[in-house]
Amino acid sequence: MPFSERYPSRLLEDAVQAIGSLPGVGKRSALRLALHLLRQPQENVHHFADSIVRLRDEVRYCKECSMISDEETCSICSDRSRDFRTICVVESVRDVMSIENTGQYHGVYHVLGGIISPINGVGPGDITVSRLVSRVGTLAASGNASDVEVILALSGDVEGETTSFYIYRQISSFGVKVSSLARGLGFGDDLEYADELTLGRSITNRQIFKP
Amino acid sequence: MPFSERYPSRLLEDAVQAIGSLPGVGKRSALRLALHLLRQPQENVHHFADSIVRLRDEVRYCKECSMISDEETCSICSDRSRDFRTICVVESVRDVMSIENTGQYHGVYHVLGGIISPINGVGPGDITVSRLVSRVGTLAASGNASDVEVILALSGDVEGETTSFYIYRQISSFGVKVSSLARGLGFGDDLEYADELTLGRSITNRQIFKP
Repeated sequence: MPFSERYPSRLLEDAVQAIGSLPGVGKRSALRLALHLLRQPQENVHHFADSIVRLRDEVRYCKECSMISDEETCSICSDRSRDFRTICVVESVRDVMSIENTGQYHGVYHVLGGIISPINGVGPGDITVSRLVSRVGTLAASGNASDVEVILALSGDVEGETTSFYIYRQISSFGVKVSSLARGLGFGDDLEYADELTLGRSITNRQIFKP
Repeated sequence: MPFSERYPSRLLEDAVQAIGSLPGVGKRSALRLALHLLRQPQENVHHFADSIVRLRDEVRYCKECSMISDEETCSICSDRSRDFRTICVVESVRDVMSIENTGQYHGVYHVLGGIISPINGVGPGDITVSRLVSRVGTLAASGNASDVEVILALSGDVEGETTSFYIYRQISSFGVKVSSLARGLGFGDDLEYADELTLGRSITNRQIFKP
């Protein structure tokens, strides 16, 4: 039995297994990282672990848009200068950060927290679609419905298209404008890998959603 | 200012900074890993952090060879079937694991915990050389000194050669055999990247150290 299967220390083995459970981190890298942490000052390692535990335990989600936040309402939804009648619907927190980085968008967001995927057992009830629908309904009822725009900024794969179509069917009766990102990006690309220029263009050149 | 510079949450920023401080983990990967951890069940994240803190706080080092261990004496130094008159001197814990993986070595180890490097401010006093010297001295005095072999299994770079030479000068007067790894490996290669076959050969074909 190779020695890597029976670690010199149970503590080391536990740490390597925990680190190796992270996506994209192999067993060899996990061992390297564990031994790196072992060489760091004790307070640094405690700070490392604390910051992760605190993130998981104490983070909050904006009651408006479900974005990560330290407050009840996130910094975007609290910003009076944003256009509250334009809602950009994204899959994840990371997508909000990517779009904000382009500096091209001044509306608000709605973070679905996932994407409809029958294969992965994710249905509409597992993401924040119903909250989006009631949010759009409230907006449409307060003032001119045609002033409201919902931008479907989801990935271009089957799950993304399915989710876009599902949302479109739920909100089209409100008479609001529904658009989707201009595909300057290659079909099927994830938002997170797009460069800021391309992503910025996609926001600016968004098109009316025609299913 | 791009949004990535002002994170949506202080907690997220702290976690990304902590994860990004690991070697080989960029800011983008750190964000991905932080958001991954955020999606995991709370007890998994606690276990993740605990295993790292416990490794750092509770790990012990073998009183004989300085290998990582859960006990006062490591599993290798406790193994009566090993050859205690052959000591393989390595820089790090990882090197012990690599050599054990070859299955070619049945002696014991001495982990220096570093390498002499004037540029990085690491002198002989910062690693476990003096403990190695007294260990070899004791072995040489108990029985036939020429039965004792010290294998210098350090990297082939300047620091490794310097450290080997330093150790050689300290222990040559004991009349013990001093060998170094056969260099089937390319000059300057690190042990950790060698395949097991090459590394196993290097142990088997070790040669008398002639400075």
